[in-house]
Amino acid sequence: MHFRDSKRKVDYVLAYHYRKRVPRHQPGAGLLESVHRPASLAIVSNGETGKSCLDQQEQSCGEHVPPEQPGLLEAQVVDLSPLDALEEEKRVQREEYERNLVEAGLEIEKDLENKSQGLSFVRIHAPWHVLSREAELLKIKMPTKKMYEIKEEGGILKKLNEVWCKLTEPLQPQVPQQDNTKMKSLSYPFSREKIYLYNIKDKDTFFDNATRSRIVREILKRTPTKARNSMGITTLIANNVYDAAYPLHDGEYEGQNDDNNERKLLYREWARYGVFYKFQPIDLIRKYFGEKIGLYFAWLGLYTEFLIPSSVVGVIVFLYGCITIESDIPSKEMCDQRNAFTMCPLCDKFCDYWNLSSACATARASHLFDNPATVFFSIFMALWATMFLEQWKRLQMRLSYFWDLTGLEEEEEHPRPEYETKLLQKKLKIKNTTENTNEDEKEKLTWRDRMPGYLANFSLILFMIMLTFSAVFGVIVYRITTAAALSFSTNETTRSNVRVTVTATAVIINLVVILILDEIYGAVAKWLTEIEVPKTEKTFEERLILKAFLLKFVNSYASIFYVAFFKGRFIGRPGRYVYVFDGYRMEEARGCLMELCIQLSIIMLGKQLIQNNIFEIGIPKLKKLFRKLKDERTEPKEVNTNQSKDPQQWDLDYSLEPFTGLTPEYMEMIIQFGFVTLFVASFPLAPLFALLNNVIEVRLDAKKFVTELRRPDTVRAKDIGIWYNILSGIGKLSVIINAFVISVTSDFIPRLMYQYAYSQNGTMHGFINHTLSYFNVSHLKAGTQPENSPFAQDVLFCRFKDYREPPWSQNSYEFSKQYWAVLSARLAFVILFQNLVMFLSVLVDWMIPDIPKDISEQIKKEKSVLVDFFLKEEHEKLKLIESLITCDKHGHQSGTKGQRIRAASFCQFSRSQKGSLASFSSQHTEV
Amino acid sequence: MHFRDSKRKVDYVLAYHYRKRVPRHQPGAGLLESVHRPASLAIVSNGETGKSCLDQQEQSCGEHVPPEQPGLLEAQVVDLSPLDALEEEKRVQREEYERNLVEAGLEIEKDLENKSQGLSFVRIHAPWHVLSREAELLKIKMPTKKMYEIKEEGGILKKLNEVWCKLTEPLQPQVPQQDNTKMKSLSYPFSREKIYLYNIKDKDTFFDNATRSRIVREILKRTPTKARNSMGITTLIANNVYDAAYPLHDGEYEGQNDDNNERKLLYREWARYGVFYKFQPIDLIRKYFGEKIGLYFAWLGLYTEFLIPSSVVGVIVFLYGCITIESDIPSKEMCDQRNAFTMCPLCDKFCDYWNLSSACATARASHLFDNPATVFFSIFMALWATMFLEQWKRLQMRLSYFWDLTGLEEEEEHPRPEYETKLLQKKLKIKNTTENTNEDEKEKLTWRDRMPGYLANFSLILFMIMLTFSAVFGVIVYRITTAAALSFSTNETTRSNVRVTVTATAVIINLVVILILDEIYGAVAKWLTEIEVPKTEKTFEERLILKAFLLKFVNSYASIFYVAFFKGRFIGRPGRYVYVFDGYRMEEARGCLMELCIQLSIIMLGKQLIQNNIFEIGIPKLKKLFRKLKDERTEPKEVNTNQSKDPQQWDLDYSLEPFTGLTPEYMEMIIQFGFVTLFVASFPLAPLFALLNNVIEVRLDAKKFVTELRRPDTVRAKDIGIWYNILSGIGKLSVIINAFVISVTSDFIPRLMYQYAYSQNGTMHGFINHTLSYFNVSHLKAGTQPENSPFAQDVLFCRFKDYREPPWSQNSYEFSKQYWAVLSARLAFVILFQNLVMFLSVLVDWMIPDIPKDISEQIKKEKSVLVDFFLKEEHEKLKLIESLITCDKHGHQSGTKGQRIRAASFCQFSRSQKGSLASFSSQHTEV
Repeated sequence: MHFRDSKRKVDYVLAYHYRKRVPRHQPGAGLLESVHRPASLAIVSNGETGKSCLDQQEQSCGEHVPPEQPGLLEAQVVDLSPLDALEEEKRVQREEYERNLVEAGLEIEKDLENKSQGLSFVRIHAPWHVLSREAELLKIKMPTKKMYEIKEEGGILKKLNEVWCKLTEPLQPQVPQQDNTKMKSLSYPFSREKIYLYNIKDKDTFFDNATRSRIVREILKRTPTKARNSMGITTLIANNVYDAAYPLHDGEYEGQNDDNNERKLLYREWARYGVFYKFQPIDLIRKYFGEKIGLYFAWLGLYTEFLIPSSVVGVIVFLYGCITIESDIPSKEMCDQRNAFTMCPLCDKFCDYWNLSSACATARASHLFDNPATVFFSIFMALWATMFLEQWKRLQMRLSYFWDLTGLEEEEEHPRPEYETKLLQKKLKIKNTTENTNEDEKEKLTWRDRMPGYLANFSLILFMIMLTFSAVFGVIVYRITTAAALSFSTNETTRSNVRVTVTATAVIINLVVILILDEIYGAVAKWLTEIEVPKTEKTFEERLILKAFLLKFVNSYASIFYVAFFKGRFIGRPGRYVYVFDGYRMEEARGCLMELCIQLSIIMLGKQLIQNNIFEIGIPKLKKLFRKLKDERTEPKEVNTNQSKDPQQWDLDYSLEPFTGLTPEYMEMIIQFGFVTLFVASFPLAPLFALLNNVIEVRLDAKKFVTELRRPDTVRAKDIGIWYNILSGIGKLSVIINAFVISVTSDFIPRLMYQYAYSQNGTMHGFINHTLSYFNVSHLKAGTQPENSPFAQDVLFCRFKDYREPPWSQNSYEFSKQYWAVLSARLAFVILFQNLVMFLSVLVDWMIPDIPKDISEQIKKEKSVLVDFFLKEEHEKLKLIESLITCDKHGHQSGTKGQRIRAASFCQFSRSQKGSLASFSSQHTEV
Repeated sequence: MHFRDSKRKVDYVLAYHYRKRVPRHQPGAGLLESVHRPASLAIVSNGETGKSCLDQQEQSCGEHVPPEQPGLLEAQVVDLSPLDALEEEKRVQREEYERNLVEAGLEIEKDLENKSQGLSFVRIHAPWHVLSREAELLKIKMPTKKMYEIKEEGGILKKLNEVWCKLTEPLQPQVPQQDNTKMKSLSYPFSREKIYLYNIKDKDTFFDNATRSRIVREILKRTPTKARNSMGITTLIANNVYDAAYPLHDGEYEGQNDDNNERKLLYREWARYGVFYKFQPIDLIRKYFGEKIGLYFAWLGLYTEFLIPSSVVGVIVFLYGCITIESDIPSKEMCDQRNAFTMCPLCDKFCDYWNLSSACATARASHLFDNPATVFFSIFMALWATMFLEQWKRLQMRLSYFWDLTGLEEEEEHPRPEYETKLLQKKLKIKNTTENTNEDEKEKLTWRDRMPGYLANFSLILFMIMLTFSAVFGVIVYRITTAAALSFSTNETTRSNVRVTVTATAVIINLVVILILDEIYGAVAKWLTEIEVPKTEKTFEERLILKAFLLKFVNSYASIFYVAFFKGRFIGRPGRYVYVFDGYRMEEARGCLMELCIQLSIIMLGKQLIQNNIFEIGIPKLKKLFRKLKDERTEPKEVNTNQSKDPQQWDLDYSLEPFTGLTPEYMEMIIQFGFVTLFVASFPLAPLFALLNNVIEVRLDAKKFVTELRRPDTVRAKDIGIWYNILSGIGKLSVIINAFVISVTSDFIPRLMYQYAYSQNGTMHGFINHTLSYFNVSHLKAGTQPENSPFAQDVLFCRFKDYREPPWSQNSYEFSKQYWAVLSARLAFVILFQNLVMFLSVLVDWMIPDIPKDISEQIKKEKSVLVDFFLKEEHEKLKLIESLITCDKHGHQSGTKGQRIRAASFCQFSRSQKGSLASFSSQHTEV
């Protein structure tokens, strides 16, 4: 955790592999490694020699290394093999880069490259003067001495809050909190001029580890190397000059020793399955991992909390379905053996007429999900989604306030290395072709340069979406053909289980396809975004997310959309069926909502279980194992023994996986959010399953961050960015989709229509009969009549589910008036539902202020407290300086006349320029 | 414009009426009026005595008035009459207030109260030290010395821009612009410490008049008077202690003399009808009136510009209707005399059967507005609204940048005087009833205190809305009864013109009712908001706007909604009509869209013309006349002669109307925006009329602001606030309303259905026949058959417009299958249209970034320029100070040893504390 002097903290680590071939370079390299500038007090210590840093510092005092060194090296490089030349170039770049870092004020410690090849670490420490300078540049808000009280709610709310705190005490994580949660220390962007404002007890710990590493990262990012005209560490890592760059974890997360580092604390109170019932220690997470990751976990936590009420309501809705199943007249009528509805055969030739009562089980199961409570539930869930987003905005604002992010402004970002490279290429090209071009044109990539990228993007995305659709279509074809094939079977049991077998296998195939395509799409989206060459890291991330989301969304939901809105709608009618291929009829749907529900639940559960278990737990473990094996194979034993003897924190962290961003984590949750909201009308238990998954997911992610990943760079972020827009988009889409699910997929509207418009006595009796149309079996096309039917002779009319004119009507088999009436009702319901829910959402959005009232008051109060505090501090300084000047004056009494005059004018200034001299006196008091 | 010394500018004026009864007070008052504190250099000059201010200043030097003066006065007050006592109290308050102002550093000039009663002015001047102090507190951004280049677009865009500038040159107002529009001076919140940053040529003109008056206003607002424990000028005006408080205009707006003040410039280049074709000089408006009013005019300008393309498209759509009128088959069929459609009588008993071809004119007129182009136009207008809002967001951002409003934060506002009074009452009440109450409870009005206000609000708003509805219903009843009454008439011409007469009178009644209710609702909304006692001025404004908008919106659109969606839909059918009162049938609709169009155009045009002419021009003129008359009557002549002799700017401004806020201006425009977007499907010329109106409106408003109103206080504002939300709400509402207008009100869907589903040959031939149902005249109820019908014997069946089963069908007169099919199609169209347009709007919203790219780049660039500039300035100061210290050191050489040490340590500090000492040295250079 520290340099060899056990004093200076290691704030950042760069790791690289080196290989040396030519031993005669050894002395030259050794010379270079000891380059240091005494002015900035930086050292490059050769770890193995055992010299203490202080010794070296003294040694090097006054020594000055001439800058011609690189030239010398280049001369040496000439007679090397290509591989070695590459290695050598990398080494030169490393050396130049490290020299620049030292110039920027950082202090560096390096291992001696004492083997022919191997892993080496550059450890970086940022001294106080660098930290304070950078903190000022980055406008990092730091707590000042001033504390102020946070206004609390009065009256009943306070009481309620206390009771709530009492109740949830066992659920609170046991992390050391601020002593006084009712006080908040006033924060102010760090400024060296106003150093007296801050409560600096120890300059080594004033900035915590996360802040220190962020500062170092900033320097690393902007320090240039001339060699390739490139900027910062990202380019160097991209060019393989360095392997990795990461800040260090705070220590081991396991072990019984008492040094309570924050990583251990996080592990104990957060990153274990054993504490799944506890709240998350968000402030500690933020302190350790930075605001961006803190916001992710805060969001995940809020989402999981919000899933609790929706799960409860979902379960109640489901139970309502269970309870009312006995009193549901349509399903009773269906199951009643006395109602002998002879249905038309389900397939040509080989299928027989069948009795509707044989589908009794399906009808009863359908009722579980297809009942009036579902309508209520989908309105509830639409409002739930709005509420969730509103609450998130509020929580985000609250966190911004407590994490001192208010007023954080967007900063100009460096272009990505890829963008710079492309720009360079363009410049060169222009130079080659023509001399006198417009200056402006060169400065950035124009629309024309990006055209191929955009085109490739557009066409590939289109292709991928087509791929998904064809996969869905493939599964449909599988289902139709298998069903047909199985119905040829002579085995009676096979034939009776056709439906179950086909559905089950089809859904599993679907799931597998989705999982495979998901992985492919992730890679494709990344590749496509790289083709696009976005300018900054931020735009890169946003475009990647949008593309990945689009592809994964289509992938996850295409089959579900098919089942919900298309399956069984294009089958035609008896006597004029629609055929897919020659002889294969379109598949019929029985209990649409039921099938949708099965589809949804299997895909959702399967996706979650498999992705959680295999992709998130299994694959990283495998990777780790694989890398370990590889390392063992490639590296000689000496290193291993060396490492195992005394494994330093940087060695341990290097063996962890690098952090690759939050996108996959968010993506998984957003897709799940889609399952919970989009088709919730058909599957009220979705929130429950999501809840169960998320309780695990939180700890799984936590564990990954604490134990399996290198410590991520802390990133300041005020919000969750584009994810919020995606969430709100899904929320809006869910309204219209649920409206259609209820009106088109479910039987809700036909039942309502029957009860209030067609029923003789206002009850549901006769509903089943009403929904079935008659078909004259003699109208069946030749060759499609059922063969081997035992009662083909007895059947004159068979029934099918549709609203069509009976065979004896004038326009036989045309859609009947009921069909159009029911369709009108369905569409009217969609309009009503959509606009009502949208209006309610807008109302909720409008009623709940985005910024909690107490927070907006606090922010305003903070400003006035700040002004008061400043004025008070300055006033005190003023007094001090006045006394100082008085003393100065007395001192001058004995001086010459000229001096006296100067002193007097100085005094006058100090009066008119109170403020500016205040810090001057503060320095006095400090000294 | 200046104090009597012709040097100090009058920044603000307070006006009050005084009355004196007891002459023995004269000397005492005179004494009080000469109260002044020499320390702050404030004076109260007795204007009539002719003493120069400087004289008085000298006289009063060293004099100190004891604070017992008020006590003395109170003793005198005892034996006064109640009216005089009130006057006296006001006077005491005034004196205390003015004393406090002087203490705050302002300088005051007062007229001598030399008459028994009359108008007196307090003129206020803010000296430099007050201005700079307050500017720092208010964080007013001022331009610094540093200029930087604004990056321009390159290539084609630049060329296009230049061409555009050339083309529009005659349209540009001739106001002095910044010399170099490509440079912008870097702005930075004013800070006295960093005074060297700013380009201060003359301290009197560094802050422009608008800023000066804003600063004075801020002081006036927060200066307390103890007398009633209240804060600032608003309370005093509310209590009638002062009559008015206003900043002065820059001078006369007319007159040929050459002193080109900004007011004159504005009048010449902006506030005349003669310059209606020119762009507005927005920057000058902002400079003169402040950001809030500047934003209003910028918004109005953008809106007017956006109306140009929509008017053009609207006119094209209208022309398309005109051109295609001859080729429209349905209207041709209707006019064809050969198609003898015998229609059922329009009223019971007195109306005869009639031939459809007699309605030929209506049919042809209908086609003008009811053709496929309208569908396109309403999609266009929905996107237009989205585009407009997007462009406004961008323009707002651009103005924010150029007006240095970026980073402007919301500040804590003072509570309104009414709120404070209410709070005081509550405190007193609690004190009276119980002693030991919770401290928190007292601090603010709780939900319980506000309950009565909210209840009154809710119920009154509900009542007002009911009132509107009943007014609409009243007009309907008027129409039905008058129509019935007129059809009894024996006069043939009367009878033939029934429809025209009734419609015209009804719409005019409607218009009058709307205009009257509009004024009432404005007052009611204000009163209701006052009942609510909102805490701050901002919430007051927001709630007032919301309430007024709700009421006025319902008022303006209720009758139009009726015509669009309800008229003619509940008439029943022949033989079973719906009757309103006994014997009065519900009114039928002929050419729905046509009627809607008439209704819309008359209300829109009438409202605009009458409101513009009468309310905005006439009433203010009348008011002015009335007040002049009143003033002449009440005040003796001496004053008049005095004023007319030498009318000062404050006298002139006092005679103007006070500024009462932008709400009415915005409201008028927003309601107009509603007319333009909400029902645009029925009236494509609406944008054109709106455009014509607005071209006038801009100049009308401008004239009002420049010539008829006192100069408003300048208010900083970053956006147009709640109006934006209302606009975007109307935009969203317009989508669904237009969807319904097209699908339900117009004949678009039935025609489409006929052409593609029912027509024999795919043409529109036979459409009219298809939409008319048959009715067997023998089924007419007894007593409703037409009397005196010449061909009653020949008629077996009459026709009516509906889709119903024919009399010979089984379910005669029930809705036919076509009815339900058409209804389904209508509803499907609504869903399709709504979701398509909403999706397109979201897409447009998403595609156009809210912040223009060049502006966001400029803002980022400005930050880095600022940092560079600071560092450079500080570096220069550093050099200066170092040379200074070196010289100091040399000076000290001759001093004692102790002094030398002190000097050395000073030197050390100055090195480590470069920044803080920089301004110290800057002072040196200035001196």
